[in-house]
This record gives sequence, structure tokens and C-alpha cells, in this order.
Amino acid sequence: MSLTAQYDDTNIFAKFIRCELPAIKVFEDDDAIAFMDIFPQSDGHTLVIPKKIRATNLLDADPADLSILIARVQRVAKSVAKALNPDGVRIMQFNGTPAGQTVFHLHFHVIPIFEGAPMKRHAGEKADPADLQLLAEKIRAAF
Amino acid sequence: MSLTAQYDDTNIFAKFIRCELPAIKVFEDDDAIAFMDIFPQSDGHTLVIPKKIRATNLLDADPADLSILIARVQRVAKSVAKALNPDGVRIMQFNGTPAGQTVFHLHFHVIPIFEGAPMKRHAGEKADPADLQLLAEKIRAAF
Repeated sequence: MSLTAQYDDTNIFAKFIRCELPAIKVFEDDDAIAFMDIFPQSDGHTLVIPKKIRATNLLDADPADLSILIARVQRVAKSVAKALNPDGVRIMQFNGTPAGQTVFHLHFHVIPIFEGAPMKRHAGEKADPADLQLLAEKIRAAF
Repeated sequence: MSLTAQYDDTNIFAKFIRCELPAIKVFEDDDAIAFMDIFPQSDGHTLVIPKKIRATNLLDADPADLSILIARVQRVAKSVAKALNPDGVRIMQFNGTPAGQTVFHLHFHVIPIFEGAPMKRHAGEKADPADLQLLAEKIRAAF
């Protein structure tokens, strides 16, 4: 089984980039977008994706593009930490369906960890958009 | 609770870098070392750390240093994938004890995923060093 695939620009994240579908964004610049995961594993679970890169995951990305992206991941992680004051932050990035990858556009998960609140299942329960908007406002204000 | 701490160079990874303790290395250059996790969550679980950077985790790292490191993480992930032919690869990076961080020197986990073999608990069961040496030989050969 291959861990990467031919990039297919009908994936949902490519549609977010082209604004064909709405995303609850917390950050955007020329290189990256960050938005709320609609199936969050914790309150504040945010995804960071490259805008111009047609990579399915970390394994087929150009190292230079990855270097640009990880700096954005750090900015988002710091803002999530500042906004929501979690007890920890997990950064996760999945390659291949058996690893948990569901969208084949390179992305990093930023998942705040709160003591006493176990992480929810990946791609499990859909969040209330109103709750996500409130969290996004707090995170945006922390940049 | 702070997610970062004053960097303390008596941590076990700093000792690996100074060769004060042995590590089962799979990769080394001027900027990074990769070695087998002795409490692996799957066969081939590898850690990638910066050599010169005194950062406790992603949150207090210099973005430029992080950019150098993620390219090494990618090289290691590709070699692990090539060597062991897993069904997926997870990249994980923990910030703060409640997120699962146990050593306060910046590091990324590269965890191959094999279908039918659930990931083991983080920092759970110690591996047989002979098994780790065999896996490391395969991974080194894939660079």
C-alpha cells in the first residue's frame, strides 16, 4: 500500500483554499491557512495547511515547503496556547489512511490538552459551529 | 502551568548528543540526530532531535531551527517507510507533561503504523535492545 497518492484538488481542504466551502479560519497568510477542525479531539483543535503546495502529506512534500509550513504550525500552536491556556499541546501529522489520514492535502493538527479532559476520538464527533466560532475568535485574538 | 521550562542540559537527549549515554542512532548530521525510542509505540518508532538547539519543545524553539529540523524529520520518516514498509506513518510532537512530553529537549516522534497492530502506550513497555538494533540497521540502510 502506498502512503501517498496522486494529489487530487477536489479534496475538502483545497476547496477551503479556493473558498468553495467555508472554513472557520483563525490564521491566513500567503503560505498557509489555519482553521478549526469540525471533528475536534479537544476544544481548540486546529488544522494548519499549506495554500500553494500540492502535497498529499509529509512524505511527498518538498522539504523547503515543509520548512515554511512548520513555522506557521508553531505560530498557531503558540496562539492556541495563549488563547485557551491548555495544560499541554500535541502536534500530530498523519500519513496514510491506516495512520488516521482522512484528507489527502498535507496538514498538521494542533491539539490543546486539558487535564481531566481526555482527547476525543479522531474524526469522531462533529462540533457545534457556534462553539467553534467562539474558540476561533479567542485564538484569532491571540495572534 | 507553563508548557515550556528553562532548558536543562542534564536531560537524557542532551546526554545522547554529548555521547555520555549510548543511543541506537539511525541518522546524524550537523543539525540533528535520529535514534530508536527505547519505549516504542510500534516497531520502528524513531525520535528526531536537534543537536545544537536548547529548546524544550516546539513552543520555545526558534522558527528557523524548527524549519531545519522538520526537513530531517521528513528524511527519517521516508527512510522508516522505505525500510519497514508500514501501512502508515504518524508524526507526533508533544508540548508539556499533560500532552505526553517526558523529555524536555525538542523532539519529534516518527511512528510507523502497521494494520492489525495497534499502537502501544506512550512511554509504556521497554523494547529488547537487540530488536531495536535490527530495526535500526534496516532504517540506516534506507537512507
